[in-house]
Amino acid sequence: MKKIDLRSDTVTVPTQEMREAMASAEVGDDVYGEDPTVNKLEEVTAEKVGKEAGLFVTSGTQGNLIALLAHCSKGDGAILGADCHIYNYEGGGIAAIAGVLPLLVDDTGGIMSKESVKKWCRPHNVHFAPARLLCLENTHNRQGGNAVSPSVFREVAEAAKAEGLSVHLDGARIFNAAVAWGVDVKEYTTAVDTVQLCLSKGLGAPVGSVLCGPKDFIEKARHWRKRLGGGMRQAGVIAACGLIAVEKMVDRLEEDHKNAALLAELLEEGGLHVEKPDKRTNMVYFVVKGEESKVEELTKRCAARGVLFNALSKGRFRLVTHLWVTEKDVREAAKIIIEEAAAC
Amino acid sequence: MKKIDLRSDTVTVPTQEMREAMASAEVGDDVYGEDPTVNKLEEVTAEKVGKEAGLFVTSGTQGNLIALLAHCSKGDGAILGADCHIYNYEGGGIAAIAGVLPLLVDDTGGIMSKESVKKWCRPHNVHFAPARLLCLENTHNRQGGNAVSPSVFREVAEAAKAEGLSVHLDGARIFNAAVAWGVDVKEYTTAVDTVQLCLSKGLGAPVGSVLCGPKDFIEKARHWRKRLGGGMRQAGVIAACGLIAVEKMVDRLEEDHKNAALLAELLEEGGLHVEKPDKRTNMVYFVVKGEESKVEELTKRCAARGVLFNALSKGRFRLVTHLWVTEKDVREAAKIIIEEAAAC
Amino acid sequence: MKKIDLRSDTVTVPTQEMREAMASAEVGDDVYGEDPTVNKLEEVTAEKVGKEAGLFVTSGTQGNLIALLAHCSKGDGAILGADCHIYNYEGGGIAAIAGVLPLLVDDTGGIMSKESVKKWCRPHNVHFAPARLLCLENTHNRQGGNAVSPSVFREVAEAAKAEGLSVHLDGARIFNAAVAWGVDVKEYTTAVDTVQLCLSKGLGAPVGSVLCGPKDFIEKARHWRKRLGGGMRQAGVIAACGLIAVEKMVDRLEEDHKNAALLAELLEEGGLHVEKPDKRTNMVYFVVKGEESKVEELTKRCAARGVLFNALSKGRFRLVTHLWVTEKDVREAAKIIIEEAAAC
Amino acid sequence: MKKIDLRSDTVTVPTQEMREAMASAEVGDDVYGEDPTVNKLEEVTAEKVGKEAGLFVTSGTQGNLIALLAHCSKGDGAILGADCHIYNYEGGGIAAIAGVLPLLVDDTGGIMSKESVKKWCRPHNVHFAPARLLCLENTHNRQGGNAVSPSVFREVAEAAKAEGLSVHLDGARIFNAAVAWGVDVKEYTTAVDTVQLCLSKGLGAPVGSVLCGPKDFIEKARHWRKRLGGGMRQAGVIAACGLIAVEKMVDRLEEDHKNAALLAELLEEGGLHVEKPDKRTNMVYFVVKGEESKVEELTKRCAARGVLFNALSKGRFRLVTHLWVTEKDVREAAKIIIEEAAAC
Repeated sequence: MKKIDLRSDTVTVPTQEMREAMASAEVGDDVYGEDPTVNKLEEVTAEKVGKEAGLFVTSGTQGNLIALLAHCSKGDGAILGADCHIYNYEGGGIAAIAGVLPLLVDDTGGIMSKESVKKWCRPHNVHFAPARLLCLENTHNRQGGNAVSPSVFREVAEAAKAEGLSVHLDGARIFNAAVAWGVDVKEYTTAVDTVQLCLSKGLGAPVGSVLCGPKDFIEKARHWRKRLGGGMRQAGVIAACGLIAVEKMVDRLEEDHKNAALLAELLEEGGLHVEKPDKRTNMVYFVVKGEESKVEELTKRCAARGVLFNALSKGRFRLVTHLWVTEKDVREAAKIIIEEAAAC
Repeated sequence: MKKIDLRSDTVTVPTQEMREAMASAEVGDDVYGEDPTVNKLEEVTAEKVGKEAGLFVTSGTQGNLIALLAHCSKGDGAILGADCHIYNYEGGGIAAIAGVLPLLVDDTGGIMSKESVKKWCRPHNVHFAPARLLCLENTHNRQGGNAVSPSVFREVAEAAKAEGLSVHLDGARIFNAAVAWGVDVKEYTTAVDTVQLCLSKGLGAPVGSVLCGPKDFIEKARHWRKRLGGGMRQAGVIAACGLIAVEKMVDRLEEDHKNAALLAELLEEGGLHVEKPDKRTNMVYFVVKGEESKVEELTKRCAARGVLFNALSKGRFRLVTHLWVTEKDVREAAKIIIEEAAAC
Repeated sequence: MKKIDLRSDTVTVPTQEMREAMASAEVGDDVYGEDPTVNKLEEVTAEKVGKEAGLFVTSGTQGNLIALLAHCSKGDGAILGADCHIYNYEGGGIAAIAGVLPLLVDDTGGIMSKESVKKWCRPHNVHFAPARLLCLENTHNRQGGNAVSPSVFREVAEAAKAEGLSVHLDGARIFNAAVAWGVDVKEYTTAVDTVQLCLSKGLGAPVGSVLCGPKDFIEKARHWRKRLGGGMRQAGVIAACGLIAVEKMVDRLEEDHKNAALLAELLEEGGLHVEKPDKRTNMVYFVVKGEESKVEELTKRCAARGVLFNALSKGRFRLVTHLWVTEKDVREAAKIIIEEAAAC
Repeated sequence: MKKIDLRSDTVTVPTQEMREAMASAEVGDDVYGEDPTVNKLEEVTAEKVGKEAGLFVTSGTQGNLIALLAHCSKGDGAILGADCHIYNYEGGGIAAIAGVLPLLVDDTGGIMSKESVKKWCRPHNVHFAPARLLCLENTHNRQGGNAVSPSVFREVAEAAKAEGLSVHLDGARIFNAAVAWGVDVKEYTTAVDTVQLCLSKGLGAPVGSVLCGPKDFIEKARHWRKRLGGGMRQAGVIAACGLIAVEKMVDRLEEDHKNAALLAELLEEGGLHVEKPDKRTNMVYFVVKGEESKVEELTKRCAARGVLFNALSKGRFRLVTHLWVTEKDVREAAKIIIEEAAAC
């Protein structure tokens, strides 16, 4: 039985083109700065997002953690959406490793208000962890994969800068946002100081993210990457896939969005309660109410029929479209989910 | 002009009896465990709250920080009320020093719901900072100084234990809670694993808190106290005041509560918007709306007339009664505040 | 001009076989534990070193850091050789990230004495960071690449265990030690609790190390890897090279050792002062005295003639043989170094 | 039986004058900066050591820890003598709390060489924890209480500054050094950026130290003190003793030095092996060889006869003179120690 894997766009295996690129990549020792493929990936990506420099890191989590370490000192605070990935899914590294206090604000809808950011920008007082950084996330994973518009995004970022904060973008899926709104990704990235973007999600590369920002920031980031053990040797073999991801895979995200829209439509027609973000990208969240034990088993029952997805909390499920999910898959998955949900 | 200082109960200067006790205290080197007065304070306090052992620390902040360090490992999470003192007023030490992620829940009214605690008790997953500890605060400073009832308090503590969590009480003002509800303080403290209580607030001692809990916990706590530089030498001179605080000053908190009740009543009669906690203790919060610049100057204008208090946020003010505030002071303060607020 | 790169065995680019393995590797999402190639690499490596489980990490530095984090609690001490890699070349991560105090001992010759280990095993005292872990390094990089014998190694490890310490081996080049002494690698690895070994040094893989140990330790390690951002997705593409490294490249280290021995001999014949470790592996250290400015330029002058190597300190130079260095290269390099050193 | 307590000068109980000062001290809430006695102590002490500002802290350990936190960022290195107090007796706080790597150098005799400091000042490299701070200790506890001369001290401090390092002095007993060399304490303290000095050792105050340095440094230090829980309320009650310590007790250290010299002389005459620092202050170290079990019991046997002291390691003992040790006590103690050591 063919699996239709809607658990995440991280499950994407590399394309044939990527595999060939890997096998023939020119490589060197990146700790010495001598891997030409890594160097090219860092330059190309930085240029695409309008930053001076880039740093290849092993994961989005590592890119975000390094941003926290390089922007903040121990004892500082970082303003975060309560529903963001950094706070919820990165193992508490912000506190455990960066020693930075999360200053939480409501990010329902995918972004916080300017007012909520300003509230944390208090005068100096020994009782406080001073706010130094605002972290944005776009598209916003737990908020339905919503793509916040460039204008709203810029407004919040500018308000933060006016308060003297630095601004970091967890742009794991920032290309999805740009594609959804039909804008150049720089519409977002030039509004922030630094951005982390993932090669291994919708863009299909097997491994890696790139952290981009000013040169001196990337210098500090490189030091922290080494301390975390993120320095790799002939990393060009994976950077080669990353290059293809950044250069050739962005436009096709459109297709994932179409499939997600179709999936949402089908599920709704099938009577399911589907969440409606302002601007859907490649995710569909739906909620099933019913007998608790049956709801809890929904993912298992669908998996038994080849359709894989995760529950984010009890009764709330997430479907993610990507490179290896076709329109046909989406139709098949919708059918199975509707049938099984009906049994709850 | 006599000052009526309602900024906090931390401003209390020691009584004459305390000063004499200090001057005649039997002391030794507490780092060697040889200060008889410190030893007695630790024993007496532990006994009062029904715990095996106690540790004299320099502040409530230090007591809470040591509790986090001794209960949790780096990378763990601690469930905290979003409005609690540990999260808001302790300089971010929970992240910066303990490396523990605050897992925030709504504590409007002074305590969180059992359900909100359970939500953070998720199955093991490498993406999470595992919840290890619940921190309660009673009376709850930012929630109007409200004293949560023993029954509600115990229920939440027990729910947390049922989930395998340890429970720590930031009991900076736990004697105020006990007095307000007319119960032995053990009604609260036996529901939790560890408690920190302050000698230097309503109880009037100049310096210090006591952290109480099981013997092996206190052993670990003692190690962390040394690392923080909290180990003192002939600390008996201040512990002597603490002993008087614990043994003789608890009952008189009643008086502070009466004065706070009177103050609240007078301000309300004077047309001010006074917050009403379920069970008031020694604090009165009131809100003034009006021309922003005038509201911001309210504390200054009252101070000019000898009445001191703080704004917790724009237009929200806190008054705290204590040892050195009499009924007459309260009446005088109310009069001045009403007059000045009228000008906003 | 062909480069003879003797700077490190980390400069090794992947073999053709590795490139093909990469391109055809079966992969999955390793964060979900579903990458069959990563799983196989972890199993095969663990089995080879006689441990229950393994964890693929991005670098030796990351493997060592995770070992510190998983063995120790913040505030503990780890006994380290003063000349070891963890202390000297890992960015201070032991303190900055693990919060562990290095308890330093003399490791001249490549290993410390049992007595020096015991000295740090002091009775409990709040003044101390308690010793929890001993870290060994074999072969020992800064000590001439010396391979400490299995018997001496085991003796020190056992003495540490007798004191209640855990023992971790920074086995970046442990296969070199085993090959040099003609023993199974388990002669070393079964004497320690955990071992980190590098795939990307003499074994020729482009990226990665494996941390091996008991199952519950690896479980903790996996959590810390995620926090550090070391969790990768379709990591099988690089693990495929690692598998070849572990399964097919160990025996050929012999050749590197022969080349290093030849190189040492030639340099000595050429009049240079060559350091003599007890058991040489793939490194040659030599010392040049002379006019300071000329000595400092030795690496540059040789590099201009195609021979690359590093100065570890003023006048002390390191040469490392590996996969891409032939006997002919060694003869050529020796000739050039001797000529240029003569000019100092 | 009267005890002659030579374990440490930390055992000194406050004088009658101090007790009276405590009882009548003018106090306020120091967290608000309103304790006049604390403020005076900070000013007077800063002035005495030639610094802009001072900060009252609860212990020497806390003063040193705060200095590390305020001078360094997480991931930096601090150059320390291998035998210094910060590294050996402060619970590993430098790593556990400050996240700073100790870069160890040989400080035999009480201070390191300029060359050893320079060795750690390496060019930027991601493999390194960059050296930011040099910590000196004078008098040097584990090096026989030796007082390093002002000229040697200044030379090392200046060499460090020339390398761009900040310099902190752990001056727990810096007044002993100044008295021993007959110079103003500024001869030492103006050579360093910051200094921590203890009130509770030879100067006889029950509790506390003062950290002195530039204003902006003390501002940062104040923030860290709060995070550590070192902020106290009516701390004037203990600061009052500190004021007497700083203003009136310095000159009498001379007497402790005379007693220590006499004690050393007597023990030597009695056939014991006494260590000879270049410039003795208030400490005497002696070594006893003999039957191991008997040597280990020496402290117990002397204690049984009323003479208390500590073993720093097996067979190495330390005696410290102070305020409460008279010439007569010294003669009596020498007699008892000689008799009991003879039995080993």
